[in-house]
Amino acid sequence: MSAEPLQTVLRSATREVVIGHDRPFCLIGERINPTGRRIFQEQLREGDLSAIERDVKAQVEGGADVLDVNMGVPLTDEPELLAKAITMVQELTDLPICIDSSVVEALEAGLSAYRGRALVNSVTAEDDRLELILPLVKKYDAAIIALPNDHDEIPMEADKRVELTGKIVRVATQEYGIAQADIVIDPLAMPIGADTSTSLVTFEVMRRIRDDFGVNMTCGASNVSFGMPDRHTLNAAWLPMAMTSGLTSAIMDARTPKIVEAVKAADVFLGHDDWGMAWISAHRAKQAAADAP
Amino acid sequence: MSAEPLQTVLRSATREVVIGHDRPFCLIGERINPTGRRIFQEQLREGDLSAIERDVKAQVEGGADVLDVNMGVPLTDEPELLAKAITMVQELTDLPICIDSSVVEALEAGLSAYRGRALVNSVTAEDDRLELILPLVKKYDAAIIALPNDHDEIPMEADKRVELTGKIVRVATQEYGIAQADIVIDPLAMPIGADTSTSLVTFEVMRRIRDDFGVNMTCGASNVSFGMPDRHTLNAAWLPMAMTSGLTSAIMDARTPKIVEAVKAADVFLGHDDWGMAWISAHRAKQAAADAP
Repeated sequence: MSAEPLQTVLRSATREVVIGHDRPFCLIGERINPTGRRIFQEQLREGDLSAIERDVKAQVEGGADVLDVNMGVPLTDEPELLAKAITMVQELTDLPICIDSSVVEALEAGLSAYRGRALVNSVTAEDDRLELILPLVKKYDAAIIALPNDHDEIPMEADKRVELTGKIVRVATQEYGIAQADIVIDPLAMPIGADTSTSLVTFEVMRRIRDDFGVNMTCGASNVSFGMPDRHTLNAAWLPMAMTSGLTSAIMDARTPKIVEAVKAADVFLGHDDWGMAWISAHRAKQAAADAP
Repeated sequence: MSAEPLQTVLRSATREVVIGHDRPFCLIGERINPTGRRIFQEQLREGDLSAIERDVKAQVEGGADVLDVNMGVPLTDEPELLAKAITMVQELTDLPICIDSSVVEALEAGLSAYRGRALVNSVTAEDDRLELILPLVKKYDAAIIALPNDHDEIPMEADKRVELTGKIVRVATQEYGIAQADIVIDPLAMPIGADTSTSLVTFEVMRRIRDDFGVNMTCGASNVSFGMPDRHTLNAAWLPMAMTSGLTSAIMDARTPKIVEAVKAADVFLGHDDWGMAWISAHRAKQAAADAP
């Protein structure tokens, strides 16, 4: 028997976004992140956060429902920087925020600067990480992205990922009183270039997590095509496949219409766009924009 | 427990194509068909088959693995026309042929003109159709596309389609000695515009048919977006979703790169393109063509 599908409710000060198995896919815009962006890193080190404005605008225009904010710049005060960025992004948009850091103090600083119900990115199944991060999630009434991996090693077997998901759900709900609906599992999408059987495992993990736990899932969707040519086409095929397997959200770059449109098309076929009205409206808006003088 | 995945072997005089759950998706080019093409119909009525040459070329260049040939023109001698077309197509290409007609005499004429192992399109679960068509399939050692519908009515419930698939498999194997591997089920993809829950049912049917019978499946893939705007984007999302659910082949227009590329991308993620070599080669060929003076 399948577990009841759960809904994860996120909020900004004024807007609510719900992630769920019977709802349109939730796009978490991924670009407000200095990783691999040298100039952005230098600006942030000098206290110049102005580039964030452009990035927020691009993700919102591209159709993001939630914004991931990461300020992981080496040799900076990450808690201070993340709190500043969270404050700034809340002034620029009313989309809920996914607070993204591997530094616990930065997560806490971000959470304390946030007004609403955030998604925290992320925790693993390691005991010491669960002990540090889950109390924060509970304290700030947030939702949490959890990765079913242990000891910094990503298990390649579906069984192990499902087992670690069970551990996370058990610890979070029983030891910290976090609602199962507020746990969003990252089923661990790996680059296809390294091993072409990796997506099959991830799709199986998604199906089993949906059936066994009913929780929502998200993942870094750009990752799967790493190292391959024509990445947009690969990503635009992978997301509908993952959605069919149970993925309800992804951290992705909303600036690529081909990928965003693939997600919206999959929403239609999954019965998450009644009468295809959102699809038809988006098409009309695109036509009107193209026809504008 | 899942049924063993079966392989359907098709042949022209010189080339073999295998449809299977652990193989690249089989593209059946759909364009050699006068349905809805007024000029082509008039030409065929006058005995002018020259347009076929262009259509064959376009489907082959687009990447078709098999060609569907249909000569259903009202007020013509369809058996004679189909036999002529089959003979002509075999001179133009070495791809195996899917012989497509609702007229039993035309199927027989096509089969007798064909050298190789054809795919016959199609039979339903209706007793009179099974009695007429299955002996031909057996006589000519062909494979058969079978639609799990009865009395000209398409069942909307997954249970009914799976039940009718069971009937077809039982009758074909037990009463006519046709190998289960030579039955290709069409799970009945309906237009999403009429009912946005229809694809969910079809995906479920695909999963259950794969698990219960191990047979291959095909369907008319253009159908799903009928009546909706931006059909190519919808089709390019639907096919990877259907492939994830067990579809191993589709009757589709190979002329649209966006849709063909989506299928090839899904092959990579399903582990049907080892090391992504086909994907990478296709990308290089495309680049070389773009760079050519």
